[in-house]
Amino acid sequence: MRYARSVLDAEWIETPIRVRYGETDQMGHAYYANYLYWFEVARGDWCRAHGFTYKSLESDGYFLPVVEVWARYRGEIVYDDDIVVRVRVAEVRRAAIKFEYEVLSASGTKKTDGYTWHVLMGAERKAVTIPEWLRDKLVGVA
Amino acid sequence: MRYARSVLDAEWIETPIRVRYGETDQMGHAYYANYLYWFEVARGDWCRAHGFTYKSLESDGYFLPVVEVWARYRGEIVYDDDIVVRVRVAEVRRAAIKFEYEVLSASGTKKTDGYTWHVLMGAERKAVTIPEWLRDKLVGVA
Amino acid sequence: MRYARSVLDAEWIETPIRVRYGETDQMGHAYYANYLYWFEVARGDWCRAHGFTYKSLESDGYFLPVVEVWARYRGEIVYDDDIVVRVRVAEVRRAAIKFEYEVLSASGTKKTDGYTWHVLMGAERKAVTIPEWLRDKLVGVA
Amino acid sequence: MRYARSVLDAEWIETPIRVRYGETDQMGHAYYANYLYWFEVARGDWCRAHGFTYKSLESDGYFLPVVEVWARYRGEIVYDDDIVVRVRVAEVRRAAIKFEYEVLSASGTKKTDGYTWHVLMGAERKAVTIPEWLRDKLVGVA
Repeated sequence: MRYARSVLDAEWIETPIRVRYGETDQMGHAYYANYLYWFEVARGDWCRAHGFTYKSLESDGYFLPVVEVWARYRGEIVYDDDIVVRVRVAEVRRAAIKFEYEVLSASGTKKTDGYTWHVLMGAERKAVTIPEWLRDKLVGVA
Repeated sequence: MRYARSVLDAEWIETPIRVRYGETDQMGHAYYANYLYWFEVARGDWCRAHGFTYKSLESDGYFLPVVEVWARYRGEIVYDDDIVVRVRVAEVRRAAIKFEYEVLSASGTKKTDGYTWHVLMGAERKAVTIPEWLRDKLVGVA
Repeated sequence: MRYARSVLDAEWIETPIRVRYGETDQMGHAYYANYLYWFEVARGDWCRAHGFTYKSLESDGYFLPVVEVWARYRGEIVYDDDIVVRVRVAEVRRAAIKFEYEVLSASGTKKTDGYTWHVLMGAERKAVTIPEWLRDKLVGVA
Repeated sequence: MRYARSVLDAEWIETPIRVRYGETDQMGHAYYANYLYWFEVARGDWCRAHGFTYKSLESDGYFLPVVEVWARYRGEIVYDDDIVVRVRVAEVRRAAIKFEYEVLSASGTKKTDGYTWHVLMGAERKAVTIPEWLRDKLVGVA
């Protein structure tokens, strides 16, 4: 069936990020909300690695808002750390996409796990079926 | 037993917040990371409602970093919305605390659910047993 | 002449703000970019104090982007500080407005000065003459 | 004289930055406060280009807080833009440093000018004379 839920074991796309001073807080680490900015940067790079940009998706009248987020923070990430944020598609439904994330230290130690769920919306800001070209990229057949 | 896990059905503490322009993104809603700032403001008000401040906790040599976060976003929150963020303690363990959150619109519609897990750390940044005075406040006997 | 430059000595509008944990950095103070968020909150309250909202201005097809900002930081603002941000109109030109700001500690000590210049834009994102109703509010005759 | 004010015409150090979705606001541009984060990233790269890191400066007991900022925004910077932020030292005093910035579009058009003034502080958070090794780098003789 076409829109069967696809649970995937896809390839990670990696994004290097250097932690900004303004992303720290007085505890001396990166503030927990900033990881969600990094997840977003990684999603953008996921799109780029698959031949399009999230910007172009919006130009085409789609939006992919986050409807759920989860992150588990272990170990500290501090100013000027050269981290790697990796992202992959974990699940695809008719109109929804789950991305998984890992934040790694420069030496490759996993510091954070996370996921986000998104719903694809059309120009009227209603959920729409993921178009075939995008679905193919998401499930790894394109 | 003293440090038995306490699962609670505690009272909500409410914090009014007005959404800032800089908290929006080009989709026209509050960007998803900003909810985590609001959760933090609500936690601060939870402390205040219980007779202390998070600031004083740090002055006393404790830190309460976030080790896990989850949020489900439904419905949109936009610039200048007068939202209410409510928080309560959901669970207390030896060194860990779970807070639950709801974000409500001005008219009382629930827009977001969330939780955060925290570990209490001492000055050496190691997990420490929650002191009795704080535990009493958390489980609602003080 | 109608659109003569008006340099003003207007009344301050005051906005109380409590500094968020996520607004600090590892130096232990509020990070310098966050003051610009506070200035924006104060501008919103300026509008409200004058009988409209910035949100309604955008609904009416206007935008008021910042074209210049300046701030001088003296003294430190830290987590949980109850600060007051005050704002007033300093100058009005045909299509441009200058707001001035002061950030005060809870005890009234001035911590920061600043200003922003804005240009009023119409729906086509071009500078437009400030409409009379708004100009009257800005120069203090309404 | 050793600590004469040095006004400089120094070399620019360039930092590529891709604009994040969370840095936009509902007007569809990068929110004005985010430029100050970019200035900070550029300062960090300035240090790196001169053989040290701002992080190491703090490890050595120094801090370089911002005491003044100015920026003029012309032209819009939007999501996913590949901008270049360039920075150079504009002036050095006994304990104070002025950096200048330009934000360029991918095609090289200048979008923003700015500057920041900083005071070098020691571990006691008081202004201290800029040490010789740092001064030499700042004025371009090392």
